[in-house]
Order: sequence, then C-alpha cells, then structure tokens
Amino acid sequence: MAKAITSRSEDYSQWYNDIVRKAGMADYSAVRGCMVIKPHGFAIWEKMQQQLDRMFKDTGHVNAYFPLFIPKSFLSKEAEHVDGFAKECAVVTHHRLMNDPGGAGLIVDPDAKLEEELIVRPTSETIIWNTYKDWIQSYRDLPLLINQWANVVRWELRTRLFLRTTEFLWQEGHTAHATRQEAVDETKLILDIYAAFAEEYMAMPVIKGVKTANERFAGADDTYCIEALMQDGKALQAGTSHFLGQNFAKAFDVTFLNKENQQELVWATSWGVSTRLVGGLIMTHSDDDGLVLPPKLAPTQVVIVPIPKPSPEINDAAEALMKNLRALGVSVKYDHDETKRPGFKFAEHEMQGVPARVGIGMRDLENGQLEIARRDTKEKAFVPKDGAADYIVNLLDEIQENLLRRAKAYRTENTRNADSMEELVSILDGPGGFVSAHWDGTSETELTIKEQTKATIRCIPLDAEQVQGKCILTGKPSSQRVLFARAY
Amino acid sequence: MAKAITSRSEDYSQWYNDIVRKAGMADYSAVRGCMVIKPHGFAIWEKMQQQLDRMFKDTGHVNAYFPLFIPKSFLSKEAEHVDGFAKECAVVTHHRLMNDPGGAGLIVDPDAKLEEELIVRPTSETIIWNTYKDWIQSYRDLPLLINQWANVVRWELRTRLFLRTTEFLWQEGHTAHATRQEAVDETKLILDIYAAFAEEYMAMPVIKGVKTANERFAGADDTYCIEALMQDGKALQAGTSHFLGQNFAKAFDVTFLNKENQQELVWATSWGVSTRLVGGLIMTHSDDDGLVLPPKLAPTQVVIVPIPKPSPEINDAAEALMKNLRALGVSVKYDHDETKRPGFKFAEHEMQGVPARVGIGMRDLENGQLEIARRDTKEKAFVPKDGAADYIVNLLDEIQENLLRRAKAYRTENTRNADSMEELVSILDGPGGFVSAHWDGTSETELTIKEQTKATIRCIPLDAEQVQGKCILTGKPSSQRVLFARAY
Repeated sequence: MAKAITSRSEDYSQWYNDIVRKAGMADYSAVRGCMVIKPHGFAIWEKMQQQLDRMFKDTGHVNAYFPLFIPKSFLSKEAEHVDGFAKECAVVTHHRLMNDPGGAGLIVDPDAKLEEELIVRPTSETIIWNTYKDWIQSYRDLPLLINQWANVVRWELRTRLFLRTTEFLWQEGHTAHATRQEAVDETKLILDIYAAFAEEYMAMPVIKGVKTANERFAGADDTYCIEALMQDGKALQAGTSHFLGQNFAKAFDVTFLNKENQQELVWATSWGVSTRLVGGLIMTHSDDDGLVLPPKLAPTQVVIVPIPKPSPEINDAAEALMKNLRALGVSVKYDHDETKRPGFKFAEHEMQGVPARVGIGMRDLENGQLEIARRDTKEKAFVPKDGAADYIVNLLDEIQENLLRRAKAYRTENTRNADSMEELVSILDGPGGFVSAHWDGTSETELTIKEQTKATIRCIPLDAEQVQGKCILTGKPSSQRVLFARAY
Repeated sequence: MAKAITSRSEDYSQWYNDIVRKAGMADYSAVRGCMVIKPHGFAIWEKMQQQLDRMFKDTGHVNAYFPLFIPKSFLSKEAEHVDGFAKECAVVTHHRLMNDPGGAGLIVDPDAKLEEELIVRPTSETIIWNTYKDWIQSYRDLPLLINQWANVVRWELRTRLFLRTTEFLWQEGHTAHATRQEAVDETKLILDIYAAFAEEYMAMPVIKGVKTANERFAGADDTYCIEALMQDGKALQAGTSHFLGQNFAKAFDVTFLNKENQQELVWATSWGVSTRLVGGLIMTHSDDDGLVLPPKLAPTQVVIVPIPKPSPEINDAAEALMKNLRALGVSVKYDHDETKRPGFKFAEHEMQGVPARVGIGMRDLENGQLEIARRDTKEKAFVPKDGAADYIVNLLDEIQENLLRRAKAYRTENTRNADSMEELVSILDGPGGFVSAHWDGTSETELTIKEQTKATIRCIPLDAEQVQGKCILTGKPSSQRVLFARAY
C-alpha cells in the first residue's frame, strides 16, 4: 500500500476519497451510486452497530424486520411523505426475465408485469404502520418499541462514498405510543442516545437541536437532530429523531382502545442513523497520513510490528504482550509478514488508523523496553516491557479522550456569531464552520438566505440561550440564535 | 394469548402456521410472499447470526457488503446461473414516481426509465465476482475470505413463512482461491461449520452430503449440503456450500499472477444459510403446546413466575435468583405482570418456547424450595432454593442434549432402506422420512423417480458405505445408497 494520498489543504474532497479507498473502507460499484463496503469499513460499521444495538436494547427496544418492498399505493397515503420520497424511488415493475425471441438476449418478460408497482424502501414508515394496524388494538399493546437494521435506497443524483449513496445501511426505529408526551419523550431519549454514542464512541462532538420546517422529515411534526462539524468547516447531519404526531396513524387508520374504553389515534416516532456515520468518523479525525480511529470503534486497537522482522525472542515477546492485552479486552494483531519492511507496515497501519503501534526490536528487548507509537499525535515513547499492557490500556483511553478534546476545540474555534448577512457570508466564504445568527423564524427568510449563501439552518440548538436580537436578513425580532452552515 | 393451536396430527401444516403466528415469530405482510419477522422470531435469528458470525470469523473470514442491485447484463454472464435465476427476479426499471397529469394519482415517471434494468439480488455471485476482478491481481491477494449478511429476493410462486419467502435474510460467503484444492477444502470446512452449528446450537441433526447434478446450485461444479428431517417426515435442505470451480472467474475474467508469474483463473466457493433455519428449528422440536427452543438459541432461557402474584418475599427471591443466573451467563426474565394469572402465563411461555420456568409461591418459599419446569418434557421438580441457579444451568445443558438426542432418535426411526420402487413408494406414502436406496447415477432416473413419487435425492451422503446394489428403478449397478425424501 503506497502512502501517497492527496493532502487536505490541496483538495479536501480528493483527500476524503483517497482515504476511503486506500484504507480499504469502500469503493464505488458497477451500479450507479451504490458502494461496496470493504472489510475494514464494514468492521467499523459493525462496531458501531454493536454499541448502538446495546444502547437501544438497554432502553427497552427490540429488533424486527419488515419487507424491502413497499406497495406504491402505501407511499401515497401520507401526503407530505410521498412528496418527500416519490422523486427518488427505485421502482420494481416486473418479476421475471426471459430470453428475447428476437435474439436480443435477456429481456424483461412483458407477461410478468406486476399489478401494482413495488418501491424499494427509502424508509419504512408506511409498510410498518400498515403492519402496526394489525398489532395494536388496546393500550395494553403500547408502547411498541421496535428497531430494524436494514438497507434502504434513495435515488440520489450526486453521491459520495458513505455520505450519500443510492443504497445505504442504517437502523430505523419505529415506535408507537398511547400519548403525545410519551412519544415526545421517546424522540428526545433517542436523540440523547445518538448524541452520547457520537461523543463517547465516535469522539465526535455534536450539537443537539431541532430542524426548521423546511428541513423536517417528510411526514414529521418535529425533527430533532445531531449536527457535527467536519474538518473542512462543513456541517454533517449525523442522526435524526422524528416526532411523527398522529400523521401515520391517521394515514393507516391505526387506533387503540384507551383505558377509558375510547378509540384514539396512536402517537409515533421514527429515528435513524446510517453508514453516513462512517463518513463522519473519517472526516472528524483523519489526517494526511490516513485514517485516525477512536479506540472504541477501531476493529484492531493495537498492532505489533517486529523490527526489522520476526525472531524467536521477538515472537515470544509479542505473544506475551498479546495475551496480556487480550485479557484486558484489547484487540491486537501481530504483523509478522516477512515480505514487508517495517517502514512499509508503519505507513499501512497509519493509513488504516490503528490507534497504537508497538515496535519490538532486539535491542529494545535487551533494554527491557518496547517502542509504542500513538496514531493521533504520532508521538512515540519507550516503555518498560513489563508494564506495557497497562500502559497501552491507559494510552487507548487517552487517545479516545484526546480525539474528542481536539474535535471539540476545533468546533469551538469554528463556531462564530454573525450579526449581519455580510458577516455570515464572510465567515462562510472564509473559514466556514458553524455560524450562530438571529433569524426571524420564517421559511421565506431561511430559503432566501440559502439561495444567497448556500447555507442552511442546521438546527435550532436545544440549549440555546434566549436572547433578543434581529434577524440578519429582515431585521425582524428574534428570540434566540440558530445555527447556520454549509452542509454535506 | 390463547393456547389453542391446531395439533400436529390434525393438520401439520396448519400447526406450523399457528405456532409461527401465535409465538410471535413472523407474519405475512402486505407484499405478496414477503414476511414480517416479529421481535421473538428476530431475536432467535439474531442468536443464530451471532454464533455463525463467530464461527466464520474464527476461521479467518471477514464481513463486507455488496450492492442490492445487479445490472441485468451481469446475470447473463454465467450461462447456468442465469437459467437458474432469471425466472424469479424482481426487476427495477424506473427511478422516479410522479403525479399523473390525468389525475390517476401516483404513477411511474416514464422519463425515469433506467438505461439498463437492475435485478434485486437473488444471490450475489455476479456482482461480487465483478468486484473481485478489481481486488485480485496476484497470489498475494488470495485467498479472499468474505461473507455478507444481507436480504435477497426470489420471486417464488408458493411461499411459507421462514421456509420459502420472496424476500429472505441470509449470509452468503464468497471466497476466492489460488488452487482448486484450497477451494474444495474451503467448501468442506464451511459444510462442517454448518453441520456443527445445526447440531450443537440448533440441536438439529443433519446429514452431510453432496447434491446430484439436478439439484446443484446454478453455476456450481459441486453443491454440498446439510439435510435435516422434520417431524412430518419431510426433509429440509438447511444449508449449502458450493464449489464453483473457475466458472465465475471465467465469466468475469478474474485472473491472478501466480508464484511462477503466470496468469491463472481464480477458484471460487460460495455458501449460505438463511432465515429458513428458523423454520427448521420450529419443525424439529416444537409440540402441540407451541414452540420448543434449544437453550443455546433461546432469547430468554428462564422465566420466573410469582405464584399467584408478586409479593415482597417472592420479589426478593426472584431478584436473588436472577442475579445468580445472570452471573452464570443465563438470560432470565421475571414475569411480574399482575393482570395475568399464572396458568395464563404458563401457557404463554410454553407457546414461546422458554426452556425453563421457575414458579415461586409463598408456601414453597417457606419450605425453602422452588418449582422448576422444563419445556421439552414438561416435567416439574421441587428444588432447594439455595442450589437453584446451579440446578438450572445443568438443566439447560440437559435440555439442549435431550433435544438433540430426541431428534436423532426420530431421524434414526425414520430412515429406512428401500430395495425396490414399491418399497420406496410405500415408505413415502406411509411414515415418510429419509429413504436410503440404490440409484444408477443418471439424471434421467432421478427425474423419473421424482415424477412418480415426488421424492428427490436429498444428497449422496459423504459417509455412505460403499456397497454394491441395483438401482431401484432401472436395476443397473450402483456402488452406494443415496438419500431420497419428499422435501420442503
């Protein structure tokens, strides 16, 4: 593996693509806009899945699986929902191929046309609420707290590996509740889980907020979100949690008998994070030498490299260290490939973002020490061989913390107030980042600002201070600042 | 949950459907032939996935993810493969819906027709080998040992929950090797993993064998399989492992530079098990009271029921027992719902197949004992409270073993030799089961027997004794018996 990737300062977008490919994360496939998630990228997604799944289960959710296909008529039942998704749907129209009698090869069999077209799910509210109709009769059947891990398809025009692909993997939670308050609480509980996951596991700080009407999920009464800031100053929507009100219950006629023996419409939420998180992880921490991974999500946390090559003594030391590390719950590999030189291996492990690297050479062993390098700062230290495992466990914690600290500092530096359109534009065209500004609360103003600056309101932060001000476009009164940014 | 399900003797097929639905395993969806996997069914599939995934990883495999869609032209590249799958494909022809200008509602936008139709993957050999072409250049890139967990679609005419559905979940392994022998070894290694999983975890005994040419995977040189026997005397193909020779390497032009610096075609295997295993699990062990689950795959292994309802003393005893069980790695729930009577709960837990049930009543507590019932035999025992956790751990092991022993005994009883067509028919029309008989090795004979009896050759068992005999149809010489059965 050659080290050469484009630097961030040269071409950020090319840097991202280079890392994704050279670190063995993903690649485009023969199908327009669809990616192949390669083993290293998939291993990171698996680590994310395991942790999120644990957090969902710890809060009472269970997994299930609903069909890939949605009858076309279902999509029409919720008016805003269909407007949001109809224009980017993969449509199944036939169920058989045949050999062309005219010799043109394999063609679609015209006799196998479906009576009703099927849509490959872009999201599953409709098929799930059509099912919930059968599952929910009484308040005793509520709440229903269900999640599914699935693939979805949205026919996007412009795609980027992990960040926006035609097919992507995600989890989608769909819950049903007896009261409005319970559904609102669930929406916020999940937002908190997403934020905790992003910060504690991805080491990616996020702003919790609520979307404006323009940016809301099609069919939601409110969309809560976590927003992160990437190293090029653009924002990334990293997860959303929707309060759906009774919209889908109305569309699919899902009612329940309440404790007072009256029929009521059911309250709903839905929420999801996707393989887009892998893109966010890359863009939050990585550098010009390749991927940088937080230890909690690194498939391999430590790699041991013999210097310059394996020998019985070095192998023994490596085996002993691996045994100690594994007993402490650390994932570790010994790279004993004799066909590659240490320098080549170092570059390779740096490219793949292995958090800590241990070099074992004969002279070090004689001195009773090992050389330990950390990926995040590139610092090296000689460490007594006997305490090495404990040292590494502490180092991994320190790397995890340092990455979050670093990302938070970057975000703080790159969050600025703007009190006029001029200031907004000058920040966006200059350093970029989050811009905190007053807004009059109307969709018209938001759209005008978007047209003029290509920035959108990423969210109305939940913890924003209530301060009076004037909208930067219209000068109308505003009671708090909202967060603008150009976004992925 | 009412207990009433159809008995096996009355209507086996209805019994199966009743269990699947009443135990909360799955249900049909609004989409023809597609199922909704409900939380209890999905939890069992998750347990299966976790264990299989561990076994694959322990043998050096890694996970990745390839696109859902396959360009139509890819399917045509391997002649036998296309014959096998073209007739049951979901075909995506368009990528957008629109509102009908004539007012007919949501229609397919004729301007959004795809240049080349996309097939929803029925299996992924073609898209994967098209990708492997880019990944494999030299012998250093081999072997490639990749698995993916995914959904696939085959447009089946007749469907049954879990056993045969239009969409199903599975894992598909796709490996690439430098030599024929390595690929054959991999095919057999996976067959052994599947058999070990079926016996040790599902408690479902299987026969390992190889398929005849008629029953081979479309595109394989050899298909190995594990075959199980269900309680109605029908066979179930529970997993297959294919030696693909160089067929897909030829079709997609995948070559590598060998150690002698020569270009060679790559050798391939593919292998899979699916949600069909859940159907096999149900039909192997369950009874007229509902599901019976082997403890190693039961989402909840033990349920504690207060008799007749919770009290501070009973709650304390339940909490203490749960703590002890969890420390021993046992999954346990306390069913303290006060709105249901114990008898109702017993029926419910039996329906869901919880392997062991603990009843805690005041009088039992005074006597220092608990009542423990096992689901497989329905036996109950009073057990001293203090040793209860250890007793239960042993009981779970004993249940796991008993289920396998019972299923093996059933299979032994229902495996018979036939030395003539009359004997074959009389067994098939009588008790059913596996029938071991001589066959002349030709496809013609196999097809004739299938037409006359509806039985197929399930496999040529790998451990079959070499004994001379005469084909039951043609009287021609045969060197070993093969296994006939009617099958799912």
